[in-house]
Amino acid sequence: MKRRDFFTGAAASLALGPMAAFGKENGSHQPLKNKFAAKNIIFMVSDGMSTGTLNMADILLQRKEGRESAWIKLYTEKTGRRAFMETSSANALVTDSAAGSSAWGGGRKVPNGNLNVNADGTFNKPILQKFKEAGKSVGCVTSVTITHATPAGFCINNKSRGDESEIADQYLDLKFDVMMGGGAEFFQADKRKDKKDLFGDYEKAGYKLARNRDDLMALAGLQKPIMGVFCEGALPYSLDTFEDAELRKAVPSLPEMTRKTLELLSKNPKGFAVQIEGGKVDWAAHSNDAGGLLYDQIAFDESIKIALDFAAKDKETLVIITTDHGNSNPGLFGSNKQFDLFQKYKHTNNWIMGDLKEMPTASQLIERIEFAQGYAIKTAEAEKLIGLLGTKNEKGLYVANKPLFREFGAIQSRYTGLGWASMDHSADYVELAMFGPGSENLNPFVKNTELHNFMLGVTGVTS
Amino acid sequence: MKRRDFFTGAAASLALGPMAAFGKENGSHQPLKNKFAAKNIIFMVSDGMSTGTLNMADILLQRKEGRESAWIKLYTEKTGRRAFMETSSANALVTDSAAGSSAWGGGRKVPNGNLNVNADGTFNKPILQKFKEAGKSVGCVTSVTITHATPAGFCINNKSRGDESEIADQYLDLKFDVMMGGGAEFFQADKRKDKKDLFGDYEKAGYKLARNRDDLMALAGLQKPIMGVFCEGALPYSLDTFEDAELRKAVPSLPEMTRKTLELLSKNPKGFAVQIEGGKVDWAAHSNDAGGLLYDQIAFDESIKIALDFAAKDKETLVIITTDHGNSNPGLFGSNKQFDLFQKYKHTNNWIMGDLKEMPTASQLIERIEFAQGYAIKTAEAEKLIGLLGTKNEKGLYVANKPLFREFGAIQSRYTGLGWASMDHSADYVELAMFGPGSENLNPFVKNTELHNFMLGVTGVTS
Repeated sequence: MKRRDFFTGAAASLALGPMAAFGKENGSHQPLKNKFAAKNIIFMVSDGMSTGTLNMADILLQRKEGRESAWIKLYTEKTGRRAFMETSSANALVTDSAAGSSAWGGGRKVPNGNLNVNADGTFNKPILQKFKEAGKSVGCVTSVTITHATPAGFCINNKSRGDESEIADQYLDLKFDVMMGGGAEFFQADKRKDKKDLFGDYEKAGYKLARNRDDLMALAGLQKPIMGVFCEGALPYSLDTFEDAELRKAVPSLPEMTRKTLELLSKNPKGFAVQIEGGKVDWAAHSNDAGGLLYDQIAFDESIKIALDFAAKDKETLVIITTDHGNSNPGLFGSNKQFDLFQKYKHTNNWIMGDLKEMPTASQLIERIEFAQGYAIKTAEAEKLIGLLGTKNEKGLYVANKPLFREFGAIQSRYTGLGWASMDHSADYVELAMFGPGSENLNPFVKNTELHNFMLGVTGVTS
Repeated sequence: MKRRDFFTGAAASLALGPMAAFGKENGSHQPLKNKFAAKNIIFMVSDGMSTGTLNMADILLQRKEGRESAWIKLYTEKTGRRAFMETSSANALVTDSAAGSSAWGGGRKVPNGNLNVNADGTFNKPILQKFKEAGKSVGCVTSVTITHATPAGFCINNKSRGDESEIADQYLDLKFDVMMGGGAEFFQADKRKDKKDLFGDYEKAGYKLARNRDDLMALAGLQKPIMGVFCEGALPYSLDTFEDAELRKAVPSLPEMTRKTLELLSKNPKGFAVQIEGGKVDWAAHSNDAGGLLYDQIAFDESIKIALDFAAKDKETLVIITTDHGNSNPGLFGSNKQFDLFQKYKHTNNWIMGDLKEMPTASQLIERIEFAQGYAIKTAEAEKLIGLLGTKNEKGLYVANKPLFREFGAIQSRYTGLGWASMDHSADYVELAMFGPGSENLNPFVKNTELHNFMLGVTGVTS
């Protein structure tokens, strides 16, 4: 596709297929007669990434490793394009991840909680089903459960994101080529309410299962559809694997899953489309867990680098990098010295509080935090946290004990200078980047729904 | 200047004068042989604007008035370009406004608190002095004191931003064409420590003084340099003028000052350069005053519209729109209904708390807040605020009573859904937009210092 000015507007756009489709929210896609820009789509989502999350991860990498993040490098080296994206759902300025992923996946804003189901009960066809029908290989990779809202929004229709067991059931018939993440409890007979042995059903249906890192590494072809489910719940926070060789050996990282997935999907001469999600960035923001947030954003960034390297070599792949919504709007408000504490972090807040076997004394808790994060909190602060350890009266999204994590985040702010505005999603316009053929069609401001037809248009797939 | 692809990079750039200058931080500017892109520069600063501030003001305008902000419209209509800008100072990831304005004004990062003075004591020549020497008309307009850090960073050298009386003195010899804002106390004999009658000195030196809105409106030419000082301290918050016709008659608004300034400066056939600052956006963020923040951002946006309309007609004007740093990273985390409360706001938190003549009862305070902002807080919340009214033990930047305003902001969040991560500046990369000739040279990521040579290069002014 001929490169041309970024802002030449409507007249030039009409001459080109992909642009004709882009911008027509909810409109039906017209068959395109032009040569299409891209054969493959890699859609990357750092879930719940406020702009401060992106910026601080970049600053941390610069100060710790003397290098920019792959995402920001797209801009400093002028190889990528960027846009603002609004993120509202059908019924709220502040979207949830189900409506967020459905906007991209189905091309329409749906009410929060819904997966490609409109308020009137009608369905929007998920984009990976469209790509699959067009002969491409398709899949999803995530650091949370594979049945979670963000991958599900590219795959299925469901009135409620909440029943992940049902979503695990829904995936069975799709026979998508590569699905990878956590959430074994939704596939295991002993963990499911209906006692169905879903892993058994997947094998019977002809899937290849991958249940640990070795299984992942051994995967070599797409003769069978692959269901990779590496642990119960979400994958561990990236930071918590740094000092745990056993964990790293058992469960693959997001970059490892990304590399293997691209290796597998790229075997199809008709191309592929994949969604890759850094899902725990959102979970970390929901629990104001700064170490979890920054190092999972960095793991996501390593996956970006793998995708960009693939696309730079392949030349037929459009990489889209974005988030579904902001979360908690963290920022760096302190001194350089305070921020530099993050360079020596060994563990997340989740590790500190989650792995406690019994109620600690104040001095034990102080010692544990200093070991994990390199600063000693005051006795009064430790006592306040201990007072909250027993109470679980306010459960947040992905946080068992919201008051405890809120207070820990606030105490931590005094040492690290990193502050939080909330424990929930925000309505902020978010960052969107593109690299590769078709990216020259990106407008400087887009609605989340517009990406659906953009992906179809740029690959010449009709819905 | 010929329009061309946004990302053609170095080779194409070298063929053009302005780009050759751009990107060479701290480098001396080489004389340019090409035809220059722009004759005039309008540099617009919403001081301390986090991305949420920009986004929420846009969403508020959409829901209240059914229109986009002028800033976002630049993107949706594809008439403007955008970039990320890093904002660090010489000694800190988190800049202050003095170092922030100096980066643009002097082209070098200086330590926080300094106005175009390096750590070694050497000076960087302020950009408006350069433009003035090149024969252009120059000036600054602000909604805070005209002697404040952001205008001062375009005008003078001073080791410390703190002594605004001294800065008022320093402006005298410059004879800049149009200076407008607040800060009368730094010019009045009875308010200055040294009892100097600076207003008298300005008149003796040949300035035309403007001291109220009528004076402003009567200004008709640039026969004399103009010093417009419309009140003591900063101008009132935009929101607080809505129901106060007397205040609106006495003190001009930022859009009114902007319109008059462009009318005056554009009379010079050699062109002009002006900085226009929405300074109270920063003050509102420092005091977690959401009504102050959103409506001052909207007043700034009205000024943007005036500048863009001027530039669209004039065709020789480059408009640069940005902020010096984030502040407090506010976001919308609640329901649509909560956010819609802002549509009916009559007054700022500053008005509610600042104009109290005596200690109110809880029911009086509840009534006052409900009158000003449309929601009734609980008695316990009102009592907590009253308990803080007397204490002024922690003075923040532009906040007489930081604990009171912090608590008020937190209480307010429960009703409006708008949350705050801090009461201070952040290290976030910030939004930068350009419109007009020369804007096609904007890179997707810039250092704050790079804008200095960008402005010189695009106008063909040598330093």
